[in-house]
Amino acid sequence: MQANLKYFFEPESVAIVGASSNPRKLSYGVLKNISQYGYKGSVFPINPKSDEILGYQCYKTILDVPEAVDLAVIILPASMTLDVLKQCGEKGVKACIIISGGFKELGSEGKQREVELMQVAEQYGIRIIGPNCVGNVNIHSGLNTTFIKGLPKAGGIAFVSQSGAVCGGVVDHVLDEGIGFSHLISLGNEMDVTETDMLDYLVHDDNTSVIAAYVESIRDGARFLEVAREVTRKKPIVLLKAGKSESGAKAVSSHTGSLAGSRTAYTTALKQAGVIEVNSLRSLLQTALALDLQPLPKNDRAVIFTNAGGPAALLSDSMDAQGIKLETLNEEVQVKLAEKLNPSAQTMNPIDMLGGANEDEYAHAIRTTIDHSQAGVLLPVLVPQALVNPLAVAEAFVNETKDSGLTTLACLVGKHSIADAKHLLHENKIPVLDYPEDVGQVLGAMRNYREVQKRPPLDSKVGKPAYHEKAHEYMQQLGERKQIGEADTRPLMELAGIPNVKGAVLNDLDAARQYAQQIGYPVVLKIVSDDILHKSDAGGIRLNIQDDQQLELDYQAMMRDVHKNVPNAKIEGVLVEKMYQGGEEVIVGMKRDDNFGPMLMFGMGGIYVEAFKDVSFRIAPLAEEEIREMIMETAAGRILNGLRGVEYDIDSLVHVLKALAELSIAIPQIKEIEINPLKVMPRGEGVVALDSRMILD
Amino acid sequence: MQANLKYFFEPESVAIVGASSNPRKLSYGVLKNISQYGYKGSVFPINPKSDEILGYQCYKTILDVPEAVDLAVIILPASMTLDVLKQCGEKGVKACIIISGGFKELGSEGKQREVELMQVAEQYGIRIIGPNCVGNVNIHSGLNTTFIKGLPKAGGIAFVSQSGAVCGGVVDHVLDEGIGFSHLISLGNEMDVTETDMLDYLVHDDNTSVIAAYVESIRDGARFLEVAREVTRKKPIVLLKAGKSESGAKAVSSHTGSLAGSRTAYTTALKQAGVIEVNSLRSLLQTALALDLQPLPKNDRAVIFTNAGGPAALLSDSMDAQGIKLETLNEEVQVKLAEKLNPSAQTMNPIDMLGGANEDEYAHAIRTTIDHSQAGVLLPVLVPQALVNPLAVAEAFVNETKDSGLTTLACLVGKHSIADAKHLLHENKIPVLDYPEDVGQVLGAMRNYREVQKRPPLDSKVGKPAYHEKAHEYMQQLGERKQIGEADTRPLMELAGIPNVKGAVLNDLDAARQYAQQIGYPVVLKIVSDDILHKSDAGGIRLNIQDDQQLELDYQAMMRDVHKNVPNAKIEGVLVEKMYQGGEEVIVGMKRDDNFGPMLMFGMGGIYVEAFKDVSFRIAPLAEEEIREMIMETAAGRILNGLRGVEYDIDSLVHVLKALAELSIAIPQIKEIEINPLKVMPRGEGVVALDSRMILD
Repeated sequence: MQANLKYFFEPESVAIVGASSNPRKLSYGVLKNISQYGYKGSVFPINPKSDEILGYQCYKTILDVPEAVDLAVIILPASMTLDVLKQCGEKGVKACIIISGGFKELGSEGKQREVELMQVAEQYGIRIIGPNCVGNVNIHSGLNTTFIKGLPKAGGIAFVSQSGAVCGGVVDHVLDEGIGFSHLISLGNEMDVTETDMLDYLVHDDNTSVIAAYVESIRDGARFLEVAREVTRKKPIVLLKAGKSESGAKAVSSHTGSLAGSRTAYTTALKQAGVIEVNSLRSLLQTALALDLQPLPKNDRAVIFTNAGGPAALLSDSMDAQGIKLETLNEEVQVKLAEKLNPSAQTMNPIDMLGGANEDEYAHAIRTTIDHSQAGVLLPVLVPQALVNPLAVAEAFVNETKDSGLTTLACLVGKHSIADAKHLLHENKIPVLDYPEDVGQVLGAMRNYREVQKRPPLDSKVGKPAYHEKAHEYMQQLGERKQIGEADTRPLMELAGIPNVKGAVLNDLDAARQYAQQIGYPVVLKIVSDDILHKSDAGGIRLNIQDDQQLELDYQAMMRDVHKNVPNAKIEGVLVEKMYQGGEEVIVGMKRDDNFGPMLMFGMGGIYVEAFKDVSFRIAPLAEEEIREMIMETAAGRILNGLRGVEYDIDSLVHVLKALAELSIAIPQIKEIEINPLKVMPRGEGVVALDSRMILD
Repeated sequence: MQANLKYFFEPESVAIVGASSNPRKLSYGVLKNISQYGYKGSVFPINPKSDEILGYQCYKTILDVPEAVDLAVIILPASMTLDVLKQCGEKGVKACIIISGGFKELGSEGKQREVELMQVAEQYGIRIIGPNCVGNVNIHSGLNTTFIKGLPKAGGIAFVSQSGAVCGGVVDHVLDEGIGFSHLISLGNEMDVTETDMLDYLVHDDNTSVIAAYVESIRDGARFLEVAREVTRKKPIVLLKAGKSESGAKAVSSHTGSLAGSRTAYTTALKQAGVIEVNSLRSLLQTALALDLQPLPKNDRAVIFTNAGGPAALLSDSMDAQGIKLETLNEEVQVKLAEKLNPSAQTMNPIDMLGGANEDEYAHAIRTTIDHSQAGVLLPVLVPQALVNPLAVAEAFVNETKDSGLTTLACLVGKHSIADAKHLLHENKIPVLDYPEDVGQVLGAMRNYREVQKRPPLDSKVGKPAYHEKAHEYMQQLGERKQIGEADTRPLMELAGIPNVKGAVLNDLDAARQYAQQIGYPVVLKIVSDDILHKSDAGGIRLNIQDDQQLELDYQAMMRDVHKNVPNAKIEGVLVEKMYQGGEEVIVGMKRDDNFGPMLMFGMGGIYVEAFKDVSFRIAPLAEEEIREMIMETAAGRILNGLRGVEYDIDSLVHVLKALAELSIAIPQIKEIEINPLKVMPRGEGVVALDSRMILD
């Protein structure tokens, strides 16, 4: 954990620089919030025009405060912040929250302000949250430096947000729901302290059991990946990433380039780090709540207790979508269940006790299931009914499940008449979902996180390859060229231990014929020219050449077509390659993401790659297990694994992906690299790259 | 519209048979509900033990009622319903709602009760809703025959539910939200009146502008399709189907059989009928609300007005997922916007007026956009802020948008402090969503429905084919056989005008050789045997035979393999076919759905069909436009259409699908039929079926 971060959350004293005595000002709201939720430290409003605000003595500058100040909250026009920060430095302040806007979000002038602030902060060793944020709340200590109205109850969810408004909206959503938080942290422009710093802090915070994050961008992808991977071994992170549009990558030069966008890099990184990615604010709250209140499911067999079939059907559908199945209740259990239920009740799972089911029937069904089945998940559902008391039923949920050690998620289908029951359940650590269709997603996230925790630590280190220096020398030879075709990518593949199809660049027909005879027909001809990016569009490929005669015809035809289609292309020669039969065609590639680094791609190759987008991704460095997972996520992987009867050489494929990862890390100049197709032969017979290309930085 | 349905909703008099004077009984609740929401007709409680309940004079039997009775609500034990229904018949009652349970839902005895009730109902011409339902509410007339507590306000949404509990849960959800309904209709076991009858009734109901339906199963798929197609030309239907698990079809005999499950049939039918299918109860409510309150979007260009970037990003993401784009605001508009906004506001779309934005700034931005851009959709977003009054902002939304004719959806991110604002907006016909991520789905549904309404009426009639009699004769010849292989499917294909690959069944090697010479090498050999379902597994296929010698070897090897793998198989002969090169392989098939009838399938053929599941479906009868849509929904279709440079003969493919539809309708015995692969040649060169098979009923 980094220095000084604790002063944001557990300061012994706080100064509010720019506190106003006018209740219509936000800075008054901040002081009021600090005053009213039980914060025990000293509070110093700083305002040259007031003597006292809200009962606190006021000081003209922070330098006038008679005691030490740990934390300063600055709410002043942007132009004044630099001087104030200097004063904070002189005063020995450890941490500053700059709520003021007027910085990077407005463009270059504001960005320059941040640079100047950062210099001062570094000079004095001050950590800064913001600027352009809404402050933070430590709910357990009562320190509230925001101007948000109202405060959720205390609990285990730390909410970290890059948008102050989302933070406020979340508070407004949960105020009346009895959902408990440990911290609300708004990070604003992240001039200094980032979302990753917060993960690192919160993993050590005893009041926090789950971290919920709203993120618009991650500043240092590689560090995030490293930190989050560690954090998720101890506490779950649930994350909502806003901004899904894929910028850049419009001028597409390879399949990898077009498929491996920056949004994909986020999703890939989050998955590799064991972070639970959700797609909505509602899901973020629901999932965090469940992870805070309940133990992880010990198995994936669930039982539904309901007073209505419809909601149970919707709930089952949502579980089905997550691959979670209903526990089969054997006849013995069903007989026991029937003893105290309506004779018409359904004792198969879902246990439908019918509309009149009351607290006793729910209690009996839940107790019987806990005692006589192996289910790991209990899902009581209540639809409000005219003659049933929701509060009494909720009490039954609590009493019967509390010592079970099983995962319980309740669904109360409604709003008007279940408010009290919901509060009771939340107080007793049973999360409540309002709609049955949301249960599956939450349970799926809990199951996924259990698997993350079970995962053995991965050895994702990728060493410096032995060919390192040779590769660098070779890259030097390529000079300033950006688009590297197959002919010049082949030597690098060879260095990296990736087998190329047998072939050579020749300068004329005679040499081509001689080489073809040497390697044996059938062969392939490919034009070699830096000026021709798409060989087949230019007529620069001839396949399946069977003999000398056909070679001559095809050679001449190809030259004619290329000269016609790309008149000014400089031709470096002709690549003659062995024509390969059999095997499965896959695509492997790498695109360097600006934020997260080298991202590997694997998928179905050949002509259908863009049509089916059957591809998967991983960010390097990565462990061999992750490469194998990556392969098996695709239909291509399942086909290679024997789906259609033949098992292919997956080990050799893994070797290629590993080699690509090593190569990408060793040679940062490579922006994109693609082997398409890579032929994967039956098991034991290896792989061979039939075409490859690179884009350099 | 069918006879008597109006008596359920607009009766001049109602009898409650089984009304209790005990406030703890549901039947008391029903009477109370009838009494308290302004129903103007006569009310007659029927109870032999009371003289008066809730101020209404009580009668011993319905026959004792001195006036005519239009509607009877029966809440008595199942065993008593038959006698009561007979009395209703004698009394001349037009419609009965049977709330009582104890019927089909309990099994065969209960089912028999329904049969007996139905006989009486038919004898007297009584229409029945239920049994096992919770009654109905006509909110505009105040007739409430349910025991549900509370009543939503009046509006345009008719909610039809096959689950009484879902009906109750929905009411509980919306009671405090100001969402208005025309009818709440719970259908129970649908012994007589079905969901389809209700569509047919509600399309003529002036108070209803949108039909929202919760459905567990549809009783008569073909009729539903026909009725819903007509209804959706006039009013939108939003439908949630519960129960997604695919039952049956475990023993899979073809790709079509495994891919075309009953859940797929539902989704396909709903799409063809122009019904908006949603996946959650929440979506059902949100979508119905928006369709009730707002006009359909006149175009798909939206403008977001917000006081915070984060929620706008989530909202944009949700629109992106639906393919709805943000309107580009030109510089002139942006200059006008800037005039009265915070100097730091973002005037590009989303228009971010920053946290302090008040009602005047929202009003200015909305007005400017309406006056100076072509956007068809306005999306004002408000996150509660300390110094902003949500009610005043909501008023601005209403005032500025009300005469614009544009589609407005508001998003108020919160709950606690926006309740009043939400009510105001709902009263003024602006739907409010609580979470920005939900906006895209709702807008997408409105856009889709606009396209449904624009769609010209389709001619989906499929006539009796000319070969009808011949085909029936041929089917007779096939006798009792269920699994029909290629050899015996070919003649039917030929009758239907679907070109088979050139081929013939031969009885020995000599005949095979002679035929191969006649059609020319290369050829294919296939074993012909009713006992061999999977020819390739049995070693019963030999491809690419180049000459007489290879034919002999392959013939003998195949016979050996088949005898070894399936020792007792009766071999009818060998199919010798021309080996076909070139073209694209697709799969076309038909599976007869129990509920909806013949369902056609089209997709990528050959070896990848199960791996990629790139398939689409339509239910026959269908129009040619629907066949073309079906093709273009798949990657296979886009490839045929020239995605990779070559255009294939889509017209001939359409002809084959049309022929399959005709054949399936003409010959109901065919349960499944599959052509895999069908080779589609380049445009103008036709198609050819390389393999086909059938399953008969």
